[in-house]
Amino acid sequence: MKIVLAPNSFRDALAAPAVARAMAVGVERAEPAAEVVQLPLADGGDGTLEVLAELLSATLHTVTVTDSLGRPVEARLALADGGRTAILEMAEANGLRRLTPAERDPLRSHTGGTGEMIRAALDLGARQILLGAGGSATIDGGTGALAALGAVFRDAGGDALDPSPAALTRLATLDLTGLDPRLRESRITVLADVSTSLERHVRVYGEQKGAAPEDRPTLEAHLARVADLAASHGHAVAGRPWYGAAGCMAGGLAAFAGAQVVGGGEEIVRHANLRRHLADADLVLSGEGRVDASSFEHKLPAVVAATALEVGVPLILLAGQLDGARALPGVVAAFSLSSGPEDLSAAIARTAERLTETSEQIVRLFSSARRPVEASGWSTQR
Amino acid sequence: MKIVLAPNSFRDALAAPAVARAMAVGVERAEPAAEVVQLPLADGGDGTLEVLAELLSATLHTVTVTDSLGRPVEARLALADGGRTAILEMAEANGLRRLTPAERDPLRSHTGGTGEMIRAALDLGARQILLGAGGSATIDGGTGALAALGAVFRDAGGDALDPSPAALTRLATLDLTGLDPRLRESRITVLADVSTSLERHVRVYGEQKGAAPEDRPTLEAHLARVADLAASHGHAVAGRPWYGAAGCMAGGLAAFAGAQVVGGGEEIVRHANLRRHLADADLVLSGEGRVDASSFEHKLPAVVAATALEVGVPLILLAGQLDGARALPGVVAAFSLSSGPEDLSAAIARTAERLTETSEQIVRLFSSARRPVEASGWSTQR
Repeated sequence: MKIVLAPNSFRDALAAPAVARAMAVGVERAEPAAEVVQLPLADGGDGTLEVLAELLSATLHTVTVTDSLGRPVEARLALADGGRTAILEMAEANGLRRLTPAERDPLRSHTGGTGEMIRAALDLGARQILLGAGGSATIDGGTGALAALGAVFRDAGGDALDPSPAALTRLATLDLTGLDPRLRESRITVLADVSTSLERHVRVYGEQKGAAPEDRPTLEAHLARVADLAASHGHAVAGRPWYGAAGCMAGGLAAFAGAQVVGGGEEIVRHANLRRHLADADLVLSGEGRVDASSFEHKLPAVVAATALEVGVPLILLAGQLDGARALPGVVAAFSLSSGPEDLSAAIARTAERLTETSEQIVRLFSSARRPVEASGWSTQR
Repeated sequence: MKIVLAPNSFRDALAAPAVARAMAVGVERAEPAAEVVQLPLADGGDGTLEVLAELLSATLHTVTVTDSLGRPVEARLALADGGRTAILEMAEANGLRRLTPAERDPLRSHTGGTGEMIRAALDLGARQILLGAGGSATIDGGTGALAALGAVFRDAGGDALDPSPAALTRLATLDLTGLDPRLRESRITVLADVSTSLERHVRVYGEQKGAAPEDRPTLEAHLARVADLAASHGHAVAGRPWYGAAGCMAGGLAAFAGAQVVGGGEEIVRHANLRRHLADADLVLSGEGRVDASSFEHKLPAVVAATALEVGVPLILLAGQLDGARALPGVVAAFSLSSGPEDLSAAIARTAERLTETSEQIVRLFSSARRPVEASGWSTQR
C-alpha cells in the first residue's frame, strides 16, 4: 500500500513538514509495511519558502531588509538551480507574523522590504524569482516594493511620494525610468495564496490586517488609483483573480514589473510532482488548519483534491476546524482533529498528536475494507 | 453492502433509536444502495426499557410508584411474551434523571419505587422480569426495593426500620418472611450497566450521586452491613462484579430476592441477535456519548466490539468525547463527532446532525478502499 501525505501548514499550530511527519507516524502505526511519501505543500502564504526550498533542493540565505514599518529585519531567501532561481516569501519581510497586533495598520505598512528582497536576489545572481505572496500585513498594491526597486510615485505636482501608503492619497503619476534594469532580463512568478481580486481585497482582508473601519474607503481608493495607473500603462489589473493577493502586491508587480501571477497552490503542487507521486498511490491525505466550503475553492487542499480526482486516488482531508468542506469534488471524506468539546488553544497545543491519531484511524478504517478483520477467541462472555 | 448500526444512547444528547436513525441518514447518503440495519442498544442504564421493548415487541404500560424521595411518579414498564415477561428500568422510578441536582442525596434516596414496579409487574401477571439497573440516584443496596416487596429490616432491638438509607446505620437483622411469595415462582434478571463491585461503588459513583465527602464512609458502612447480612443468609455478595450496579441494588436483589445479575450490554446484545445480524455484514458502527479507555471494559461498545471481532466484521466507534478508546480489541477505528474546538453544550445540541455527517464520512472512506475513485475531467487549471 502506498500512501501520500500532502498537507498544507496548520496555521498557528504546525508547519507543513511537521504536519506530514505527524501524519506519517500514525500511518506507520496503522500500516507498518506501507510505502509513505511525505510531500508537505504550501499555497504561496506562510511556509512557502521552506516547502519550495525543500522541493527544489535550494540553499537558504539570510538578508537584512526592512519590515512593514521600515525597521531592519532578517529575512531568509533560498537559491536553487545553481543560483539562477531564487525563492522568496514576502511574509519574511512583510508578514502579519512580523507585527504585534497593536502594530497592524495597513495605512502605515508597506512592501518595501519585499522589494529589497527581490533586489537582494538579483544581486545574488538570480534571474528567475518565485515569490510567495500571502500572509502579508500590507495593503499597498505593491507600491512599496516597486519603490524599493526604483519606481518613483509622484503627486500631481511631480513631487516623489514616500512609500508609506498614507501618501498614496496624493498619487498621480508613476515614473518607471529608474526601475532596476535587471528586472527586464528576469522573470518574477508571484505565487498568490488567494484568488481574491484587487477590488475585493479590503472587504475580505482589511479587518484581519488591522484596518479600522473608517480607513477602509481610503485603502480602497488607493488600490483603485493603482489600478487606474496600471490601466494608463496598458495593464488590466481590475477584476482579475489572484491579483489581490498580498495586499494587491501581486497586481502591482504584474502591472509594473512584468511579473506573472499564478495560484500558489497549483504552482507548488506542480513543483512537487504530486501527479507523479499519486499515479501508483492507494490513498492521499491532505489538510490544513481550517477548511470551510466558502474558502475551499483554490485553496491548497482543493488543488490536491482536484489532482487526486484526475488520477483516481481517494483523498481524505484532515482539519483542525471543519465547516462544511465535506463532499467537495475529489474529497472522499474529511475529519476534524478534535476528540471532543474543547477550546481552541488546547486543540492547537495537541495538533501533532491528533494528526498522528486521526491519520492512524483513517488508515485503519481504509485497510479494514480491503482485508478481513481477524476473527479471534476473545469472548463476549465474562 | 450491509451495514449494521448498533449504538448505545448518547447520554444527555440522544436516545439510542435516534442515534441509529441519525447514523442511517449518513450511511444512506454515502451508500444509497446499502442494506442498513438499525439496531439501537442499551447497557441496562437509561434507555434500556425503550430498546428492550422494541427488541421483544413489548407493549408499554404506565404505573404510579414513588420516586427516590417517596413522591408519586409515573413509571413505564413493558410486557412481552403474552404478558409473561416484564421489562423494567429502575431509573423510571429511581433514576438520577428524576431528581434535580439539589435533590440528589443518597442518604435519603432509596429504591422503594423499583420494588413497587416489580410488584406491579407481578400484579400484571409477569413471572419473568428483566430489570435494567443503571443511572440510579440511590446507594441503598436494594433495601428500599426489598422493603417494598415485603422484607423487614430491623435494628438490634427488633424494631422495623423505615426504608430511608439514613436508618441503615442501625440495621441488625433482616426478616424475609413477609417477602412477596410470587417472587419464588418468578425469575428476576438484573441487567447491570457497570461491572463495579459493591465495595467500589461509593468511591466510583458517590460524587455523581450527590454524596457529600463526609457521608461516604456512612454509605460504605451501610453497604458493608448489607453484604454481611447477605453472607449470614448464605449469599456471597462482596467482591462480585456487576453486584455494585444501581447503588448495589443488583447485589441486594441477588442475595435476598433470588435475582440473577448479568452484564446488561451482553444480555441486550443477545436479545438483539447482534451476532446473526453481523454474520453477513460488511461494517458495523457503534458508539456512545463518551468513551474512554478506563470505562471501556464491559461497556456496550466493548460488547459490540467483541462480537464484531468474533464474527470478523470491522467495527467503527463514534463518540461525542473520545479519550484513548482507540485500538481496543475489535475496534478498527474511532472518531469523535466534533468538527473543531467548541463547547460541550454546542456539541450536544448538534449531536444528531454530527452523527449523520460523521457516519457519512466513515462509509465514504470505507467504500473508497473497495471501489476506485472515478477519474473526471475536473481540472486543476483555472
